[in-house]
Amino acid sequence: MDIEQANRTALERLTSARPLLTGVARGGESIAFLTGRRLLHAGPPIAWERASGPLRGALIGAVLYEGWAADEAAAMALLASGEVPFEPCHHHGAVGPMAGVISPSMAVYVVENAVHGNRSYSGFNEGYGKVLRYGAFDAEVLGRLRWINEEMAPLVGAALAAGEPLDLRALVAEALHMGDEGHNRNKAGSLLFTKLLAPRLIAVGEDRRLTAEVVRFLGDNALSVLNPVMAACKAMADAAHGVEGSCLVTTMARNGTDFGIRVSGLGDAWFTTPASTPDGLYFAGFSAADANPDIGDSTITETAGIGAFAMAAAPAIVTFVSGKPKDARDATLEMYEITAGEHSHFTIPALDFRGTPVGIDLRQVVELGITPRVNTGIAHKNAGVGQIGAGLVRPSLAVFEAALAAFAERYA
Amino acid sequence: MDIEQANRTALERLTSARPLLTGVARGGESIAFLTGRRLLHAGPPIAWERASGPLRGALIGAVLYEGWAADEAAAMALLASGEVPFEPCHHHGAVGPMAGVISPSMAVYVVENAVHGNRSYSGFNEGYGKVLRYGAFDAEVLGRLRWINEEMAPLVGAALAAGEPLDLRALVAEALHMGDEGHNRNKAGSLLFTKLLAPRLIAVGEDRRLTAEVVRFLGDNALSVLNPVMAACKAMADAAHGVEGSCLVTTMARNGTDFGIRVSGLGDAWFTTPASTPDGLYFAGFSAADANPDIGDSTITETAGIGAFAMAAAPAIVTFVSGKPKDARDATLEMYEITAGEHSHFTIPALDFRGTPVGIDLRQVVELGITPRVNTGIAHKNAGVGQIGAGLVRPSLAVFEAALAAFAERYA
Repeated sequence: MDIEQANRTALERLTSARPLLTGVARGGESIAFLTGRRLLHAGPPIAWERASGPLRGALIGAVLYEGWAADEAAAMALLASGEVPFEPCHHHGAVGPMAGVISPSMAVYVVENAVHGNRSYSGFNEGYGKVLRYGAFDAEVLGRLRWINEEMAPLVGAALAAGEPLDLRALVAEALHMGDEGHNRNKAGSLLFTKLLAPRLIAVGEDRRLTAEVVRFLGDNALSVLNPVMAACKAMADAAHGVEGSCLVTTMARNGTDFGIRVSGLGDAWFTTPASTPDGLYFAGFSAADANPDIGDSTITETAGIGAFAMAAAPAIVTFVSGKPKDARDATLEMYEITAGEHSHFTIPALDFRGTPVGIDLRQVVELGITPRVNTGIAHKNAGVGQIGAGLVRPSLAVFEAALAAFAERYA
Repeated sequence: MDIEQANRTALERLTSARPLLTGVARGGESIAFLTGRRLLHAGPPIAWERASGPLRGALIGAVLYEGWAADEAAAMALLASGEVPFEPCHHHGAVGPMAGVISPSMAVYVVENAVHGNRSYSGFNEGYGKVLRYGAFDAEVLGRLRWINEEMAPLVGAALAAGEPLDLRALVAEALHMGDEGHNRNKAGSLLFTKLLAPRLIAVGEDRRLTAEVVRFLGDNALSVLNPVMAACKAMADAAHGVEGSCLVTTMARNGTDFGIRVSGLGDAWFTTPASTPDGLYFAGFSAADANPDIGDSTITETAGIGAFAMAAAPAIVTFVSGKPKDARDATLEMYEITAGEHSHFTIPALDFRGTPVGIDLRQVVELGITPRVNTGIAHKNAGVGQIGAGLVRPSLAVFEAALAAFAERYA
């Protein structure tokens, strides 16, 4: 068994994947698991008892949103009893930022990898502030969700159906030349996304008032494109998963309690460790004492070679994750130490158009003791509050050591 | 007379100016000179006999567009005879890229400096390829111009009238954090512009087909915002003009034959020298032998502290103007040598958010022998062809020496 060859194969599959945004569907229409009263969530599997505040909040919100319970207490009882089973998005081709909860009636973006044929899904981004993905679930949050899923998503779906699929790999490549890193900073990508959709939305939208609202919402939300980009990264990472003998990391995800990884050559096994708490900048009135441990599937961006791995492309990001522009550059340079290659499609102008570091090699992480860097939002630790900051985080080395030990055993 | 104090005053006026895009008007409605058969053009004053190919082409095109002549020969005869007088845009509060021709019926963006009260104007950007500003004037060019002025501009005007003025200073500041330098690279700025206008265009546009076309045109043209940005820079530079005793450069402009400057403390006097020919990258099938000398009012961007002066913000620009990302960084660093200050609103993330170099000091240019750097498009030398490349250019030192000599004489 040739690990180097296996890793080359996995890396080639990851970087040659071409994710296209093909359409919009209901979660329940596109994801087989989401039949009846079931939910998806971010990160590795977790039981209700161990779920963090923001994850609980988002699950409660989804139960209320679906009308499966009349109030918070009833929703909690349903979730605690196991009558509403919930599984990781990652088990079903999906990804979600922060709590990452997807329910059957919620709309999802559908992404197809034109090269390898696999599909992936993500919900719609709700914007900033008090939102479900940060564990908030009051009437305002659920009302906005309803508008997104019932008014905005069908219009976006019709716009996508009215033309060619959107090439998300090309969009990310362009955004990296416009100061985005694709995880915490998606300003340029969201404008590119809005620009691509707007003429189509106008063409298909019979209700001008709604069209204007949707275009405004997409354009004003600098994270509009985060969810499609995450689904694109999921499509790329999934293409690299399941290569016999490869020790490249194909999943990194957090549920607010645990951080977990999966490895290309180790099948469906998760390796988990307690999630770290991010260092970063807090919104007025909040501090590190309010912070929940790291949460969300958005580490799929780093897994696919963008996000913190591409920070050298995004010096302006330090204004909201802390640090100096040099730190952003150094973050990328360090990640070359633990990756198997450089991305052939994602390049960084400030590094003389060098490809982003991509393909986290378990062996390099453990040998060098350098864990992957992650850019992230920070959720309040209590259900129902929301985002309180943004920052940087690194998982514990232990989880990579455990995975490498399992890899050694499996391929001994 | 205290030159330092005068320069501080001029610089403070330049950097504190707050240009707002307030609306759209016809050239003839807003610019007093444009009554009857008259035209504006880029650069310092020039007679027909000395006008370059692309400038002649654009003037001919404007005469045909206005219907003052039936064909090219008749248009040339009118222009050569003096029956269609033409003056610099800069004499009338206006600026135009490349040939910069504005005629009475063409639409102009109206920019108001909210701090100092002065106004400025620029036409609409026609996009890439064979366009009037590069001296092309065939039926396709004139047809697109007609669509822009008769269909697009009124809709954009209605959209602007339907809300608050757009803060162009804020837009430029944001675009500099997204990989633009504001002269040759306006990708991010044009997307921000499209994003700000799109919901309003949808709200006011009764004809959905037209609205979709306009939003697509604005979004797909990475130079959409160049003209409003140039008008914004003109409003800033004009605010700094006319300060007694100041030796800051408040105009740099080229007509394709001459490069000219004006100085804050030297009134309306132009100092001119033959325009240089840019070094750069040529489109397939063209070479330096086809290039016209440098042309256009777009050097107003460098005059106001962006463009080549802000290249460190735009490492990706080297793919179309030539050079390496380090050259882009060095270009900005060099410009600090000849400028009076750093911009308080325009900052460069990669330089630790240092303000852009701004306020070209005639004395520093001459003492150090460092002329201002300019990013530019390259026009074919013959009328009727269009753009053939993009690159970098520096004016001759002689013009700054002549201006400094006049300054010394005036303030002796």
